[in-house]
Amino acid sequence: VDRFSVTYRILADDIAAARGRALDISVEQTVEIPRAIVPHGFVEDEILGRVEAVRPHRDGEGVFAATISYSSADVGGDFLQLLNIVFGNCSIKTGMRVESIDLGDDVSAMLRGPRFGRDGLRTLLGVAQGPLLMSAIKPVGLPTRELADIAYQFALGGMDMIKDDHGLVDQPTAPFRERVRACVEAVGEANAKSGRNSIFVANITGSARGFDERAYFAKETGAGGVMVAPALQGYAAVEELAADAGFGLPIISHPAFSGANVIAPDIGFSHAFYYGQLQRMMGADAVVYPNFGGRFGFSVEECRAIVSGSTSTLSGLKPILPAPGGGMSIEKAPGMAKVYGEDVIYLIGGALLSEPDDLVGACRRLAEAVGRGN
Amino acid sequence: VDRFSVTYRILADDIAAARGRALDISVEQTVEIPRAIVPHGFVEDEILGRVEAVRPHRDGEGVFAATISYSSADVGGDFLQLLNIVFGNCSIKTGMRVESIDLGDDVSAMLRGPRFGRDGLRTLLGVAQGPLLMSAIKPVGLPTRELADIAYQFALGGMDMIKDDHGLVDQPTAPFRERVRACVEAVGEANAKSGRNSIFVANITGSARGFDERAYFAKETGAGGVMVAPALQGYAAVEELAADAGFGLPIISHPAFSGANVIAPDIGFSHAFYYGQLQRMMGADAVVYPNFGGRFGFSVEECRAIVSGSTSTLSGLKPILPAPGGGMSIEKAPGMAKVYGEDVIYLIGGALLSEPDDLVGACRRLAEAVGRGN
Repeated sequence: VDRFSVTYRILADDIAAARGRALDISVEQTVEIPRAIVPHGFVEDEILGRVEAVRPHRDGEGVFAATISYSSADVGGDFLQLLNIVFGNCSIKTGMRVESIDLGDDVSAMLRGPRFGRDGLRTLLGVAQGPLLMSAIKPVGLPTRELADIAYQFALGGMDMIKDDHGLVDQPTAPFRERVRACVEAVGEANAKSGRNSIFVANITGSARGFDERAYFAKETGAGGVMVAPALQGYAAVEELAADAGFGLPIISHPAFSGANVIAPDIGFSHAFYYGQLQRMMGADAVVYPNFGGRFGFSVEECRAIVSGSTSTLSGLKPILPAPGGGMSIEKAPGMAKVYGEDVIYLIGGALLSEPDDLVGACRRLAEAVGRGN
Repeated sequence: VDRFSVTYRILADDIAAARGRALDISVEQTVEIPRAIVPHGFVEDEILGRVEAVRPHRDGEGVFAATISYSSADVGGDFLQLLNIVFGNCSIKTGMRVESIDLGDDVSAMLRGPRFGRDGLRTLLGVAQGPLLMSAIKPVGLPTRELADIAYQFALGGMDMIKDDHGLVDQPTAPFRERVRACVEAVGEANAKSGRNSIFVANITGSARGFDERAYFAKETGAGGVMVAPALQGYAAVEELAADAGFGLPIISHPAFSGANVIAPDIGFSHAFYYGQLQRMMGADAVVYPNFGGRFGFSVEECRAIVSGSTSTLSGLKPILPAPGGGMSIEKAPGMAKVYGEDVIYLIGGALLSEPDDLVGACRRLAEAVGRGN
C-alpha cells in the first residue's frame, strides 16, 4: 500500500525526546490505542504511522523536524480523513506543528486539485503578464444597487476580479441572488465599455445544504468565480466543488475564521502548509491571506512561505496564485512587487474605497503603479 | 434591530490602547473599511460593531475584556456569517481571543440548539442518575467483524454509548455502511442480553455532499446517534443536521482538527466558548474534548470552563454533556468525579482495550468505579 508523509516541527529537549514525541504522533494520528496493544499484521504493519526521520530543525536548539508516513489505506477516499490523519487529535497538543506534506501516488491520484490554478486564471482573465488585480465590494449593509455600482466602477477602473466582501452573504439589504444578478450585470456593462474581461466572484460561504445551490446559481447567473472560507464551510465542501466538472469555475479561498490555525508559532500549521499546500489539495485556485505590513501581523518571511506552499511542486497539483490583502496601497506597490514578482493577485479594498468620488480613477492609478496601466 | 454581543480578551498596554483595539475589532468584523468612510445611516448606526464596554480583565495587568455588540441584520440567517462576525478576520490577529457570547433574541430565535442536550440524552439512554459511559471501537484497520465484536463487548459491559473511533470513516477494511449495520446489530444483541439501552454512535465525518446520506443511513439502520468533527466538516453542516426534525438523533461533537483554535492562550477562542457555547449554538448534544491529566495538556480549570460553557445559561439553548476523554482509568475516577459531578460522559478507550481478553470485565470494573455498577 502506498504511503504519504507529513513533516512536523516538534519542540523537545533533545533528539531522543523528539523521537518519543514523533512516535506519540504516529500512534495518536492512526490507531489511537497504547502502542503495546496495536494488533499485529495489517494494523501494525500498514496503518500505524511510521517515523521515517527525526532531525534537528533549522530553527535551532530545542526544535526538531520529524517526518512520519501514513498508509493511504487509512484515508479510504475521504478528504477529511486525510486531514484528520495529518493533524486531527494532535492539533490539540502544544509544541508540535504541521510543516509540510508529501502526497504520494495514491493520495495525489485521489485529489483533483485546482482546476485553473495560476495559469488557468491568467488565461480566463486574459492577462498574460503582470500582477492580477482584485477588489471587494463593501460594506455589508449597503443596498444591492450601491454594491453593484461599486462593482461597476471597480471593473471599469481595471480590476480583473471583483468579489463580494466575505461578510456579504444573504442579508436582507442585499440578498444573495439579487446581489449576484446585479453585480454580474454591472461588471458585464463595464466590460462592454472597457473591452476587458473582468469577472464577478460571488461569496458562497453559508448554508451547508445550500452550498451547491449558491455555487450553481452564481455560475448560471454569469459569475466568473466563487469565494469560500474553508475554515467555516468545511474543507470537503471546497474539495468536492472543485472536483465537480459540471461546476468548473475558479474558487477563491478566504481566510476567515482560520487564523488561530496558523498564527501561533509552535502549534497548528505552517503558513506554507495551511495557506499553500492545503489550498491546492482542496482545489482552490487562489488564496486570500493578510499581506505583510498591513493591519495583520504576517511577516515577509511568512508571506514568502505562503508563496512557496502555493507554487512549489506538490505531486501534480497546479500552482495557485497568492492573493495578499489588507493594507495594499500605491505607496506599497514597489515593496510588494519585490516580494511577489508578477505571479500574484493584489487584493485592494480600503485604499480604493477611500476615494469614493473617484473610484475609477483610484483603480487606474493603482493599476498604473503595479504595471497594469493601459 | 436586535443585537448580540461578544466579549473578547484583549492584550494591550493600557485601557486606552485596549479601547483602540476594540474599536478595530468593531470595524474589522463588520464593515471592514476605514472608519472615516463608513456610510452614514443604516451601515454606521446598525451594522458597524459597537464597543459597549472595555474593562480590566481578571487575568491582571495588560489584559482587558471588551464587549462588542453586533446587529442581527448583519447575520442574515446564515450560521456561518454569525461565526464570521464573531471572529472571522480577527482570528488572524494576535493578542485577542473570543471569550464568550450573549446571543440576544434574534440570534437565539434563529438557532434550534441541542435537540436532546443533557436531560434528553439521559432520557434516551434510560440513565437518570450517575455519569454516562462512552467508549470507542478501534483501531482503524481492523475488519468490520472485529470492530463489531468490540462494540458488543462494550455494550455488554455496560457502556451507554459505543461510538466509532473518529478515524473510522469509509476505509475498505470496514466500510461505513457495513460497519454501521454490524455494530448496530452487535449492540442490539448485547442489549437483548443485558436489558440495557446502549446505543451505537456512527462517525459521519466525511464527504460534504454525502454528509446527510451518511447521517440518514445511520438513523435508518438503527444507530442511536452520530458523531461529527465540526472543525473538519464545517459548523453549518452540524447546525443544519441538528435543526432537521426529520433526523432527530443526538449529535456528538469531536474535537479533531480543532485544537489550534483553543490551546494558545492569547488567540482564538476560550475553552468555554469553543467547546461549550459554540457546540450548543450548533446543536451538538455532547462535546468530546481531552480531559485534564491525560495525554493532552488541558488543565482542570480549562475543563471546568468547558463545563461552564456547556451548561451555563445561553438564551434558551439546552445544557449539553461534557465528554472528557483521553487517559480515563479506574484510578482517576474519584478525581474526575470531584471535578465533573454526575453530569458527564466519561469517554474511555485505551484503558478498556488494554484488557482485550476481558473487555466485558474491564467495562464492568470501570462502571463500578464511577458508581454505575449493577
